Amino acid sequence: MSSSDIFFSEVTGTALLILLGGGVCAAVTFKRSKAFNAGWVAIAFGWGFGVLTGGYVAQISGAHLNPAVTLALAIEGTTPWGDVPIYWVSEMLGAMIGAVLVWLVYYGQFHADLKDPEMAERRGENPGPVHGVFFTSPEIRNTWQNVVTETIATFALVIAILNLGLTKGVGVSGTGVLIVALVVVGIGLSLGGPTGYAINPARDLGPRIVHALLPLPNKGGSGWAYSWIPVVAPLLGAALAAGLHQVAFA
Amino acid sequence: MSSSDIFFSEVTGTALLILLGGGVCAAVTFKRSKAFNAGWVAIAFGWGFGVLTGGYVAQISGAHLNPAVTLALAIEGTTPWGDVPIYWVSEMLGAMIGAVLVWLVYYGQFHADLKDPEMAERRGENPGPVHGVFFTSPEIRNTWQNVVTETIATFALVIAILNLGLTKGVGVSGTGVLIVALVVVGIGLSLGGPTGYAINPARDLGPRIVHALLPLPNKGGSGWAYSWIPVVAPLLGAALAAGLHQVAFA
Amino acid sequence: MSSSDIFFSEVTGTALLILLGGGVCAAVTFKRSKAFNAGWVAIAFGWGFGVLTGGYVAQISGAHLNPAVTLALAIEGTTPWGDVPIYWVSEMLGAMIGAVLVWLVYYGQFHADLKDPEMAERRGENPGPVHGVFFTSPEIRNTWQNVVTETIATFALVIAILNLGLTKGVGVSGTGVLIVALVVVGIGLSLGGPTGYAINPARDLGPRIVHALLPLPNKGGSGWAYSWIPVVAPLLGAALAAGLHQVAFA
Amino acid sequence: MSSSDIFFSEVTGTALLILLGGGVCAAVTFKRSKAFNAGWVAIAFGWGFGVLTGGYVAQISGAHLNPAVTLALAIEGTTPWGDVPIYWVSEMLGAMIGAVLVWLVYYGQFHADLKDPEMAERRGENPGPVHGVFFTSPEIRNTWQNVVTETIATFALVIAILNLGLTKGVGVSGTGVLIVALVVVGIGLSLGGPTGYAINPARDLGPRIVHALLPLPNKGGSGWAYSWIPVVAPLLGAALAAGLHQVAFA
Repeated sequence: MSSSDIFFSEVTGTALLILLGGGVCAAVTFKRSKAFNAGWVAIAFGWGFGVLTGGYVAQISGAHLNPAVTLALAIEGTTPWGDVPIYWVSEMLGAMIGAVLVWLVYYGQFHADLKDPEMAERRGENPGPVHGVFFTSPEIRNTWQNVVTETIATFALVIAILNLGLTKGVGVSGTGVLIVALVVVGIGLSLGGPTGYAINPARDLGPRIVHALLPLPNKGGSGWAYSWIPVVAPLLGAALAAGLHQVAFA
Repeated sequence: MSSSDIFFSEVTGTALLILLGGGVCAAVTFKRSKAFNAGWVAIAFGWGFGVLTGGYVAQISGAHLNPAVTLALAIEGTTPWGDVPIYWVSEMLGAMIGAVLVWLVYYGQFHADLKDPEMAERRGENPGPVHGVFFTSPEIRNTWQNVVTETIATFALVIAILNLGLTKGVGVSGTGVLIVALVVVGIGLSLGGPTGYAINPARDLGPRIVHALLPLPNKGGSGWAYSWIPVVAPLLGAALAAGLHQVAFA
Repeated sequence: MSSSDIFFSEVTGTALLILLGGGVCAAVTFKRSKAFNAGWVAIAFGWGFGVLTGGYVAQISGAHLNPAVTLALAIEGTTPWGDVPIYWVSEMLGAMIGAVLVWLVYYGQFHADLKDPEMAERRGENPGPVHGVFFTSPEIRNTWQNVVTETIATFALVIAILNLGLTKGVGVSGTGVLIVALVVVGIGLSLGGPTGYAINPARDLGPRIVHALLPLPNKGGSGWAYSWIPVVAPLLGAALAAGLHQVAFA
Repeated sequence: MSSSDIFFSEVTGTALLILLGGGVCAAVTFKRSKAFNAGWVAIAFGWGFGVLTGGYVAQISGAHLNPAVTLALAIEGTTPWGDVPIYWVSEMLGAMIGAVLVWLVYYGQFHADLKDPEMAERRGENPGPVHGVFFTSPEIRNTWQNVVTETIATFALVIAILNLGLTKGVGVSGTGVLIVALVVVGIGLSLGGPTGYAINPARDLGPRIVHALLPLPNKGGSGWAYSWIPVVAPLLGAALAAGLHQVAFA
């Protein structure tokens, strides 16, 4: 497969993943959204069906959408190591485009709610929500704890992908995309509580950079002190999953 | 395929889409409904499974159910341009029939709740709910903002349909209908917050006309000032998706 | 297929449908249930996944589970008219067994809550919940209105089944069972508001008979005045769907 | 299939099942979790998608993940009786590993909430939640009642698995895993109210042992008086399902 095929496929797919994933966070966060306060079930299905949408669009390149998945498939030998840089660049760029699209879809909400005194008070108690449209942050800050949580959650995702029996060729396609999307719903429901389940370096770092760059009113900081964890831990979890898969299942 | 095959298939399928989609809006809106206040997750799944139901019924004609999807498939060359008028007429007629069926299913609720002082007060604060059974309206009125939101949301739907790898022949069929239905659940959860996700000119305009014609008590206006946006923006989003698909994936 | 094959398959499948469907009504109704007040989304998915469970168990006989579906498939010529009586008897018997199983699963809850003053007060305001474990009753009593609602909802179910393209042979099997189950989730979310969506004569009449016979404390009446509507209207809706299918799609 | 293949497959699959299943219980229980109070729908989907994730990972050994399923497949002749011990040991070990992983993912939450006075008060009224991350306990304690509930719920699971038509070879694989996962969602929604639906001896006993061993603050007792019911009743339900399947469907 050509680099430009990988590029267009992964950029578009990852942008759609973040458009729907970041979108559902915006949908439940903003007061002037029809889905305001729709709850964690909405968030988990929104992210999962973001994987579904982006995944079907990116079938041609194996629907990685996630640098940790690319790393695992490279360790497995499914993806050539020489293709890893183009996948990683495409996933990051796609994630950034997706975050900009979320901002455009919810532009009025971002600008109305960030100036709203009631929402400001709400944010005072819990500064997470508006940030949460772009990037994850833990409920309890503890470096080793947060690393462990993200590592285990990503391990669950990647070991499932590697054992689908549907990853021949370049990655995931066909019915496999649906299954992986539902696995992501499950990971969100079950393992998202402590850190907000980045489980994907591009999903977290790309929109975080966009948050830093966008001219949002009262947007607060971009949480850089925490930012390395949702990058490093997913890569670690993916490598552990690929290692176990090589030893126990291959 | 004959025009009468397209006609019966798309009329029936789109009527079922609106029956279930408008139906779930009625179900959560009316006080004397067992699903009163069931929330946005119910709405998103109700519309998505409306696509599922209507889509399986309309497989023979490719389950377009949406003038924007027909436009995209015509640009792609899947649907002959000469068939576009019969699809569009069928989709509009089906959507209008579906809206009448919602009125029949919830006839008692429409007529009891619209005269109920408590519900009237509720509507006073937020006039959307009863209208929302028939047509969409934005949380924050802003022409360019609303156009952008509906364009991006429809783009996400159509680019997914075009990349399913399941659209050979006349459109979507088989497992593809299930996938598209779940993508629509995802779009509802994630991108429905600002405008209520028409993403389909027939879904919005057909029931809006029915709202204008039906003898409902205290029904209010039919929101004509906004009505062009859920028609134009979905067609724009679909055309952009077909254009990108031609350039980057074909 | 032999009559005894049909019998064991439809009895078991319909019993499981009612076990899960009646079960979820009990689960959200009783105070001493872990799913107390889980809401309409839980109910719609519970009934739909009851169809899934019963449907996969009854694949050998086409997973009718519903006299209205049997009627439609007989009109279509899929099911021989001579087999209709054994299907109907099996479905009714299965539904009654299922209702008894719900009573056994929630025996403690039935007997604790029906004597609980707080729950009695709750029932005073709304006598539906405990009855609702067994049979449907409308939010607004109006004969023609209720007939129309159940007829349209069953029409939607049956026209979907007939157009699945997966009903060769004796009825629904394979992936078709999953699709029909999700269609039933959708009908519940969207069309269940006014009458509680019997859409199946056996689902309503069988457990209603069981309610009349069981020694429940303070169980109230069994709603016989309404009981003919969830029998007649679904049969009417199914016949209309089969008629339309013959004219427009066959 | 070699014993080591069974071992690695069932240990990994069952660990993932409990990681997601126990995880969702933690997610909705702890105050400092983003999914706090997400409700029973979240729990039912979380456990079901735990089956999905663990099941796809353990396809090579038939994705039993449950000693009751292994028993039924042995009675059916699908699994050799000589393999039953290795399955049972693997499932128990996997469940214990999964429970430890839940503790690691939610380590901060376990240790913060168990010392939190507000949560202590909450636990005072209802001691279930924290225990519920590890093991089931009934809403109403009654030996025969609880045995009946768990037996019927497991019967429903196992009769569905045996009739899928997708259990050739060693157990469940392919699309069958998805169907079984959704059946488990349905059983949770519908039959989980009285006892919390163990329906799996390893799911309950393994994490209960881990609860007894872990150094959790104020963790309370491990409910040993009840512990035999979620072991014996699921085995009974599975045997009844296999018996019925042999008589009526084979």
